[in-house]
Order: sequence, then C-alpha cells, then structure tokens
Amino acid sequence: MKAPANPPVDGRFRFRLDLAYDGTDFYGFAKQSAYRTVAGELLSGLVKIFGEDDQDFRMRVAGRTDAGVHAQAQVLHLDLTSEQLKRIRRGHGVAERLNKIIAPDVRVISFEEAEPGFHARYSALSRRYRYSIADRSVVPNPMTSRYLLEILWHLEVEPMVEVAKEFIGLRDFRAFCKERDGTTTIRRLREISVKRRSNGVIDIEIEADAFCHNMVRSVVGALMSAGSGRTSVREVRKALSGQRNEHAYKVQAPQGLTLIKIAYPAKSKLAAQAELTQRTRTLDDN
Amino acid sequence: MKAPANPPVDGRFRFRLDLAYDGTDFYGFAKQSAYRTVAGELLSGLVKIFGEDDQDFRMRVAGRTDAGVHAQAQVLHLDLTSEQLKRIRRGHGVAERLNKIIAPDVRVISFEEAEPGFHARYSALSRRYRYSIADRSVVPNPMTSRYLLEILWHLEVEPMVEVAKEFIGLRDFRAFCKERDGTTTIRRLREISVKRRSNGVIDIEIEADAFCHNMVRSVVGALMSAGSGRTSVREVRKALSGQRNEHAYKVQAPQGLTLIKIAYPAKSKLAAQAELTQRTRTLDDN
Repeated sequence: MKAPANPPVDGRFRFRLDLAYDGTDFYGFAKQSAYRTVAGELLSGLVKIFGEDDQDFRMRVAGRTDAGVHAQAQVLHLDLTSEQLKRIRRGHGVAERLNKIIAPDVRVISFEEAEPGFHARYSALSRRYRYSIADRSVVPNPMTSRYLLEILWHLEVEPMVEVAKEFIGLRDFRAFCKERDGTTTIRRLREISVKRRSNGVIDIEIEADAFCHNMVRSVVGALMSAGSGRTSVREVRKALSGQRNEHAYKVQAPQGLTLIKIAYPAKSKLAAQAELTQRTRTLDDN
Repeated sequence: MKAPANPPVDGRFRFRLDLAYDGTDFYGFAKQSAYRTVAGELLSGLVKIFGEDDQDFRMRVAGRTDAGVHAQAQVLHLDLTSEQLKRIRRGHGVAERLNKIIAPDVRVISFEEAEPGFHARYSALSRRYRYSIADRSVVPNPMTSRYLLEILWHLEVEPMVEVAKEFIGLRDFRAFCKERDGTTTIRRLREISVKRRSNGVIDIEIEADAFCHNMVRSVVGALMSAGSGRTSVREVRKALSGQRNEHAYKVQAPQGLTLIKIAYPAKSKLAAQAELTQRTRTLDDN
C-alpha cells in the first residue's frame, strides 16, 4: 500500500473500502454482538491487521443492508491513525490480506486512500438496488436460487412497468416505509425498471438518493401485486398520496435484494455533497 | 401426472427426470451410504412418494458428476411398477412434490414419462460441460464464487484458444484420464470454446460423446497452463499422441465445473442410439 497522499483530519487518515457479500448467512450489515454481521466479519479481519486498540475504526457505510440482503458494490470508509498505518507495509495489499482472513461470503474489492472530503455515506448521490424474481416460467436453478425470490405463480411484466412509473420523482414514501419518529419519508426516486431476462427471471432495478427502511422491498411488493392483477395504478397513487399510513404493500423477502451501485459526485464535489446531505437528512437514512 | 401412454417393459414404466444442483455440499452424484450425495438426496424424496419397497427405482444417470461438480441440466431415468404409480394422483405434479421434500440445493426441473427406447445414459449423444475461471482481472463476487475457480494470476485467452483446437475430433485422452483397467480412453470431442465474458470471467465449454474420469478438468488444466505460458501446442500434441501415460496436466478443482447439457437424438432414434452405445463402450464411461 502507498503512504497517504493527503493530510490527516483530526489525526486520522481516511480510507475507502469497496466490498461485496452474499447476505444469506448474515444478520445484516450493522454490527451486533450476538449475531454474525458483515461489519462484524470485516472488523474481525481489520483488528488482525491494524490492532485491537480500535473497535470500529470509525467505520461508516453507504447502504446499511438488512438481514439476508446481498451486495455487489457496497462502499464504506475507515479512519486510521498513523500508529495503525505503521502496521501495514508499503506495497502490500490490504484488500488481499483481508480476503485471506475473512470468510468467503464477504470479499473486499479494493482498499484505497479516500479522496479529500469523501464520506462513504454522506457523499453518496444515490443507491441502486436490484430485486430478482423467478416466477412460474423460470426453470429451477439451485446455483442462483439464493439470490432470487421464487414464486409459484406467473407475473405479468407490463402492468408492473406501468405501476413503476408512479414512483418516479420526489414522493412521500410513508406508505412504503417502516415508520420512525421524526424522520422524513420523502425521497427522490431517480429510476425504476422492470425487465424479464432471456431465462425468465424478472429484474426490478431501483435507484434513489436514499431509501427509508423497508422501502425497496415494499415498492417491490406493490409491483408484484400489479403483476398478479391485485393492484392498479389508481391504488398505488392513493398509497403515494398519503391516504394510507401503514404498509400499503407486502415487504418482500430479503433474499431477492442486492445492492448493486453507490454513486458519488466528482472528486471536487465530495465534501460539498457530504455537507448538503447532513443538512437535509437525518441519521436514520440509508 | 398423466397415466403412462406407453406399455411397460419388464413390468415397469420408465420416467425421465431432469434436474439441477449446486454440487458444493455433495459428495458427487452416485449414492454412497456414508456421504451426502445427489442421488441419495433424490432417493430420500422418491421413497416418500413411491414407497420404501424400492431402494433405487433402477435409477440411471446421464452424467455421473464428481464431488463438488454442479449441474444445470442433468438427466436420469427411473423404472416404476404399476404398484408404485398407484401412489401418485393424476394431475398432481411429481416434480413439485419432490421439490417440497428434498433440500434446496437439488431442484427437479421436470418429471415425465420417457419416450419409448429412452435410456438416460445410453441414449445420450453428448455431454456438455462449462468450466469457469475468475483470474486476477475479475472483481470478487461472493454471489458467484461457489461456481468459479478463483486464481490470483492472469490468464491469456488467445493461447488457450489455440491449444483448445488440438483436442477436437477422435483422440486418445489417456494422458488426461484417471486410468481404469480395460476401459478405452478414446473419445470424440465435438466442440471446445474459450471465451472471456464482459465481467472478465473465462468460460471454457467442452462437448464430447462422453468423458473419461477427470477428463474435463485435466483438459482445463492444459488450457490454463497454456494461458499462463507454461505449455505449448507442441507439448499438448505430445500428450495427445500417447507419449505420456500419467496425468500430463493438473486436474483442476471441481467447483468451477458445471454440467450444462445432455443431448439426445430424435424420438425415433433413442433405442438405436442406446444399443449402439452399449456395444461400443464400457460401464465406466460418463
């Protein structure tokens, strides 16, 4: 690894870590002493490299995924002291070393010094998730079934596409969020697509500035209802207009959900974006 | 399920079962009392449906995969008595019932009465396998790593393609087979391709009338040697010319290997093909 090129902030050097994981056997990202979590697995490797003085290396993550949710492109940052950095040799890859220590269902893709102003969570412009469904028409495949919701009935893609359009833009997702006191449920949904692959699997991709708790899986519930003929554009509009407070649609199982992208602005705008996010959002966002 | 349309042979009705499995946690296909095997898992479901009088339902399989090898399109047949058939109700899917009983790493794709003359193993014209490798250039992905060989160095695809051509046609694969007394090591390799996907993963696909033991993984070993600059077309030719008896190249790990297709002739030629195979090959073929 190279020596830090940027000066420390509050005596610490910030590093960006990109990672992927199979969420099946994890109780979510965030560390919990009683359960196996992605952060816990990663920290068990980090203390072996950087020492046990630090319990969390000030780790902050871009998308705190729930139990059972997967990630192909998660991003987090760590703040390390110069004492901790002394423990790694130059030219020696931290990502490779971590991957040798931690369990194979978490893989570190890269470990690099962060750009000045970078904050894994607050600098992020948007998060993109994919939810995959194998309906009746899909040939069973145990090699992909850990990452799909398998259902025994047929889904019609066309009404799903129609209903999906209703979610685009700045909307109040109160009917699609697990309520938390004092937090806003307004989000800007940038993109949503519903496509059937050649092998029959239906992929729903959703990108937003941020998501409130359970939001992706609840929107997927609405789309699946539409694909089964059990809801309509009119009903979804009603839910979005705030006429329903509780979960309007079923929160679908986590195994079909994968975090596929975190988007950041250009280098020069990382600090400004982080500041903007902190001014306008609350701690409970993901 | 429908009633059999064809008359029984030796008092039994033949059924064709198509299945897929994640081989990671199996000690291969063939039943072994002390280990978890695909056949064992399947039989545990079959006895629950058809009764415990029968231990193997005269099961024969097209491709007896080794420990750790996966299958997306395995084929087998079962011979059932009319007594056993009484235990299944018409219009009731055996595939669906089996999938509810057996572990999720094996999935039954279909269960149908076999065409007259069909033999899962002897009627097969060819088997096709895919071997997938993630070399240094591939971003780690724990969602696919169970089905790839991961290596830390770079493979050059071009020399792999060149060497691959040497294997096509009727060849003696003695240097690529685990020796078994009295069995022929001559096979007709119909097709072999080496391609790098857009995500960097290298797929090697090999199709032959049949494979002797360890053959695919040993041919993959030769291709990987070529991709690393450690062997040449000339050396592979030497191995194929019978100048080397033992394993000329490393048998690669099973986790990268997947059975992807079994090809059968048209309905009218199933019986003739089965007879031809039995005349020209021995019991040890796969």
